[in-house]
Amino acid sequence: MSLVLQRQSIRKYKDKPVEQSKIKQLLKAGMQAPSANNQQPWEFIVVDDRALLDNLSETSSGAWMLKDAAVAIIPLIMTGDRSPKFAIQDLSAATENILLEATNQSLGAVWIGCYPKEERYKFVEEVLNIKKGHPFSMIAVGYPDEEKEMKLRYDEKRVHFNKQ
Amino acid sequence: MSLVLQRQSIRKYKDKPVEQSKIKQLLKAGMQAPSANNQQPWEFIVVDDRALLDNLSETSSGAWMLKDAAVAIIPLIMTGDRSPKFAIQDLSAATENILLEATNQSLGAVWIGCYPKEERYKFVEEVLNIKKGHPFSMIAVGYPDEEKEMKLRYDEKRVHFNKQ
Repeated sequence: MSLVLQRQSIRKYKDKPVEQSKIKQLLKAGMQAPSANNQQPWEFIVVDDRALLDNLSETSSGAWMLKDAAVAIIPLIMTGDRSPKFAIQDLSAATENILLEATNQSLGAVWIGCYPKEERYKFVEEVLNIKKGHPFSMIAVGYPDEEKEMKLRYDEKRVHFNKQ
Repeated sequence: MSLVLQRQSIRKYKDKPVEQSKIKQLLKAGMQAPSANNQQPWEFIVVDDRALLDNLSETSSGAWMLKDAAVAIIPLIMTGDRSPKFAIQDLSAATENILLEATNQSLGAVWIGCYPKEERYKFVEEVLNIKKGHPFSMIAVGYPDEEKEMKLRYDEKRVHFNKQ
């Protein structure tokens, strides 16, 4: 089955660290995303410090799983120098690539949205002392401790041919 | 090699139609994308009408390859009912999933950005008579007629650990 169909949002993790080699693969996947005019308006913070992860779990009501995650990858959105209006798209593609590569590496992961919600990204900036760019998302990563049934979301009613 | 690392932007296509079964796989991949609160703020238009594709190739200077593409998939961004601020993220993840599934199906594809550039999405709305939602992107798809060397974009200088 295609990697794209295998991916699920995994929020429960084993108490087991993630190998540095796997984290590097996730970062490679993120940076391999397409971006408008290849502007690559991104940096990445890898957080594995337990106290910092605990702090970050208080970013929003949907960030609780960071308390159990082995690591968080936090892509930062920078000002795109060629197509600034498409920087959100670029960072989203990078985030999705990281989620898919996590699946490919038998890891579990979930996307926690930050940008453009100011109360979220400012909170993360304070915790991590970020001075340049804004935290775009937080990707919680760990070895999965839950199994979920695959639900196909395909809905024929949402497909149109040649006209809406 | 991981699907995520195999994907490339392919802009030259063979004069060969794409099977309906493959197009359905691309749509499945798009709709399987994660979305904020699972809001799925999307519909999809599949365009294979030659005259319409020719018209759409004039949307912007970066849309010329639609003249040779067998098909275009056009995700529409709708108002997200639960997390409207994250609808762009949701549609970007769906677009990236379609690009990756195209790679998985030995097809070539490229992401043409539309939303939020008004002059682009309004042009597409007029060509396709769209009344609900806005054209978010156009994904040109066809059998590849170019081979590109894989360039790894990983850049260690963009990675930080625990602090920026």
